[in-house]
Amino acid sequence: MPPEPVTATLLISCRDQKGLVAAVSDFLYRHGGNITHADQHTDQEEGVFLQRVEWMLDGFAIGRGEIAGAFEPIARRFGMDWSLRFSDYVPRVALMVSKLAHCLYDILARWHMGEFRAEIPLVISNHDDARAIVAGFGVPYHHVPVDAAGKAGAERRIRALLEDANADLVVMARYMQILSDDLIRAYPHRIINIHHSFLPAFAGARPYHQAHERGVKIIGATAHYATAELDQGPIIEQDVARVSHRDAVDDLVRKGRDLEKVVLARAVDLHLRNRIVVYGNKTVVFD
Amino acid sequence: MPPEPVTATLLISCRDQKGLVAAVSDFLYRHGGNITHADQHTDQEEGVFLQRVEWMLDGFAIGRGEIAGAFEPIARRFGMDWSLRFSDYVPRVALMVSKLAHCLYDILARWHMGEFRAEIPLVISNHDDARAIVAGFGVPYHHVPVDAAGKAGAERRIRALLEDANADLVVMARYMQILSDDLIRAYPHRIINIHHSFLPAFAGARPYHQAHERGVKIIGATAHYATAELDQGPIIEQDVARVSHRDAVDDLVRKGRDLEKVVLARAVDLHLRNRIVVYGNKTVVFD
Amino acid sequence: MPPEPVTATLLISCRDQKGLVAAVSDFLYRHGGNITHADQHTDQEEGVFLQRVEWMLDGFAIGRGEIAGAFEPIARRFGMDWSLRFSDYVPRVALMVSKLAHCLYDILARWHMGEFRAEIPLVISNHDDARAIVAGFGVPYHHVPVDAAGKAGAERRIRALLEDANADLVVMARYMQILSDDLIRAYPHRIINIHHSFLPAFAGARPYHQAHERGVKIIGATAHYATAELDQGPIIEQDVARVSHRDAVDDLVRKGRDLEKVVLARAVDLHLRNRIVVYGNKTVVFD
Amino acid sequence: MPPEPVTATLLISCRDQKGLVAAVSDFLYRHGGNITHADQHTDQEEGVFLQRVEWMLDGFAIGRGEIAGAFEPIARRFGMDWSLRFSDYVPRVALMVSKLAHCLYDILARWHMGEFRAEIPLVISNHDDARAIVAGFGVPYHHVPVDAAGKAGAERRIRALLEDANADLVVMARYMQILSDDLIRAYPHRIINIHHSFLPAFAGARPYHQAHERGVKIIGATAHYATAELDQGPIIEQDVARVSHRDAVDDLVRKGRDLEKVVLARAVDLHLRNRIVVYGNKTVVFD
Repeated sequence: MPPEPVTATLLISCRDQKGLVAAVSDFLYRHGGNITHADQHTDQEEGVFLQRVEWMLDGFAIGRGEIAGAFEPIARRFGMDWSLRFSDYVPRVALMVSKLAHCLYDILARWHMGEFRAEIPLVISNHDDARAIVAGFGVPYHHVPVDAAGKAGAERRIRALLEDANADLVVMARYMQILSDDLIRAYPHRIINIHHSFLPAFAGARPYHQAHERGVKIIGATAHYATAELDQGPIIEQDVARVSHRDAVDDLVRKGRDLEKVVLARAVDLHLRNRIVVYGNKTVVFD
Repeated sequence: MPPEPVTATLLISCRDQKGLVAAVSDFLYRHGGNITHADQHTDQEEGVFLQRVEWMLDGFAIGRGEIAGAFEPIARRFGMDWSLRFSDYVPRVALMVSKLAHCLYDILARWHMGEFRAEIPLVISNHDDARAIVAGFGVPYHHVPVDAAGKAGAERRIRALLEDANADLVVMARYMQILSDDLIRAYPHRIINIHHSFLPAFAGARPYHQAHERGVKIIGATAHYATAELDQGPIIEQDVARVSHRDAVDDLVRKGRDLEKVVLARAVDLHLRNRIVVYGNKTVVFD
Repeated sequence: MPPEPVTATLLISCRDQKGLVAAVSDFLYRHGGNITHADQHTDQEEGVFLQRVEWMLDGFAIGRGEIAGAFEPIARRFGMDWSLRFSDYVPRVALMVSKLAHCLYDILARWHMGEFRAEIPLVISNHDDARAIVAGFGVPYHHVPVDAAGKAGAERRIRALLEDANADLVVMARYMQILSDDLIRAYPHRIINIHHSFLPAFAGARPYHQAHERGVKIIGATAHYATAELDQGPIIEQDVARVSHRDAVDDLVRKGRDLEKVVLARAVDLHLRNRIVVYGNKTVVFD
Repeated sequence: MPPEPVTATLLISCRDQKGLVAAVSDFLYRHGGNITHADQHTDQEEGVFLQRVEWMLDGFAIGRGEIAGAFEPIARRFGMDWSLRFSDYVPRVALMVSKLAHCLYDILARWHMGEFRAEIPLVISNHDDARAIVAGFGVPYHHVPVDAAGKAGAERRIRALLEDANADLVVMARYMQILSDDLIRAYPHRIINIHHSFLPAFAGARPYHQAHERGVKIIGATAHYATAELDQGPIIEQDVARVSHRDAVDDLVRKGRDLEKVVLARAVDLHLRNRIVVYGNKTVVFD
């Protein structure tokens, strides 16, 4: 395959106003931008406009280093929150895991097959179990045990590891320790967590036990950006599977693993492809 | 088509013990019963055994009037909760509706096409809107307005209507008034309600608004047996549909209608075909 | 609720070229158009660009009668196939049905509840069975029997009925007769058919029998625009349901009905809301 | 966790006759068998009866070596095809793969986490690409290149490897070479293949290209037992995913991988837990 052409992507949110779409497409058109993806959404209730537009750098009249400066006046005029991404930037993704490694192995296998455009500089775990397999994928493994006494110390070490690795994104692939508000705030909308229930049902501990207890006929999994409030962050992706009275808690756990893997992988993929804009406590997913 | 052969169905729940299955199938075999459906479930945690077995009356050595008496000793030996149903019994189903009649029309159309083996002796509504269409299906319509002053009076009238109709089953097809505990207890596991969310998420009022507010990516509907605690009864059936940021509350309402219709219809169908055993606050659905 | 504001919608397809998006949004912006929905798609392989853009007439500087003329130069410049629709136009939908009326009743009930913005001037059937219920919805019913001898005559009568009714859209709601090429060509991409399988699997007659024979674990339904080649037209919508060895052909038929209803209703809804562009033998669905 | 108690499982198919269920449950009851799972199915059209019954060896009066002999007279009386399995037998599973290793990695990861009760004595591939990762899981890797000249030779080598490994089950985890009839017949209903379409749609080569060409709105994957006729064997499991006009062939391939993984894994799991009975060209899945 020939190399993918490099694109630039603008992610925009602002107060809804007339002329927004025209202003952005004018800007791109005037400078010879060939748009490969454009999508927008207006939240009528909140009066918020959100847009994603992606175009080829090849043939674009403005050099990549000058695009932000050239767009700035438009952004200022409309009062935009915005960011600019280039498709050849390779994000650095840190993976965190506890004992259950199905999501970890799934992400590593996808990454190994080229499904994610990313580097994975490290895996952090409060257990040592997954070390051998992770080594097979050629990724450094850091065992940071967490105990009541040393919780603060463990977090300091985790934070140092993430900073040393220049992590752009942290993926909690069934990492079962609660991160401090402080650490979460250091990575705003850059920590993705997978919760093993269909949120907001069964937030908190042991969701499959809760689901079994309630006798639901469908279980779910939810990927969301971690925020200070546990299991309350903006939802990125959810999926569900049918269960029946035949399924004991262990069966829910087993069936749920397939949900968790695919829901987390989709959320990571959407994030890495710059498809998500967060506004308020919600996401807009431009897929 | 030739008439369906008449069958008898035993629904059994009891403490799990050895020899249960053999005892029941022996009983049927000895008397020439040709089993057309048999299914069972053991809840290992609770130590509860549940069974459904259906066989043809044709060729069975015991007359239908004597089956219960002949089975009684086996039931006593194992301490069974049990019931016996005949497939040629035509249950009487009362429908209740408020303003939104999609579930009502759906059930009436299915019934008209022969999907449910049932009589529908009446529709009760706190509004008069659906009268004309219901008349088209040839079903009597009773308008029982409910206002704060007359809530008790309305319930008395509803109860009288249900009793006069000899209702075996009451289907709350988006009936938006809360029934009294007293009325609910008069129809144990015989009132099916449809709640327009994926319970236990978004119980109570305005679930689509709650779902939109939370930014979920999937909505649901839940059919359950009404109990004294609102939206807490045993779940019979659930289903879900994918939504996105593009869906305003009105879109959730519209997409949800399709869920509500099909989930309620499946629950009614399972109930009418004697496929459900309730135990604790859960259902076992022998489909 | 206040009346919905009136919008205009452009549906465009043409050879992919630079500046398309900018030209259209410029046109709307310059004349004060407030865009409420804009979506586009580029088929990279075929080099085809497709767009849907919807904006409010209120505040737009060009009168509704002059919009087409004002847009024409842009359309000519880019060689566009295009059409212009107004949201206050009420399309006229003719329904056709044979014996199985579940899709018919479902569409009538949705229409009655205001789900479709449309008039339904008539139902045509080769059987007389559904007359009473259709009358309940206040829609004229035309019984046009079809027999080998009189197939041509029946079609002439159907065609006359559709023309007299000024039908914009014909919905074959399980109408089991094959229409002539001639009639189909008279309504290009304006006849929606529901096929009771997951096309292209099980095209032709008795798809549920075919599915049962093959032992599939999932059944489907497909709504498509009728073309001269049976079951080969552009697919609008599909959905599926899980089945098992327990399901006899009759069960597949019963489960399939729920698929057929919802898939056909979604296709009709998408068509009526001007969400579909056909290109080649495919549809682009701007939902 | 304590060790799972050892169970015996009977898988039975025969002509439908009265007394079958009673005879089997009598046999188990008389000898003190505690049934943990029993399910049956009667294909009314074909007049075929199929049953699965599983019971605890602990407390059963017949030693495991004598069960088959003790059951033989019952089997003979009813003309049963039957097999007897013990839950502590650990099946030997050979994995085969070509270039695309997502299914292979998924199965290895599940196996590593204890999801499958099986040994994996070897992986066979016509490419050498997956060697390093497979080594990480501690499984021997055999590279058996296939070229036109040496196809027969390659098959001889594959066959020898399977025989040396005493393979009970062969899983074609996206192995893209066609096996000879001879090899397939040597493993009747013991070779599971994953086809990357919703069979019978898009059998044969390049199914995602076929699906894209046809413009379907849903794609699928199918796990089936390999038979001499390509893609025509008994279907074990299928699943589907929604796609849209936005999805190019590459996107179908990517989305399809998630289907292939989960569908193949479910089929392997059902096979290993003795949940499948094949009859004619269909499966009965006692889940």
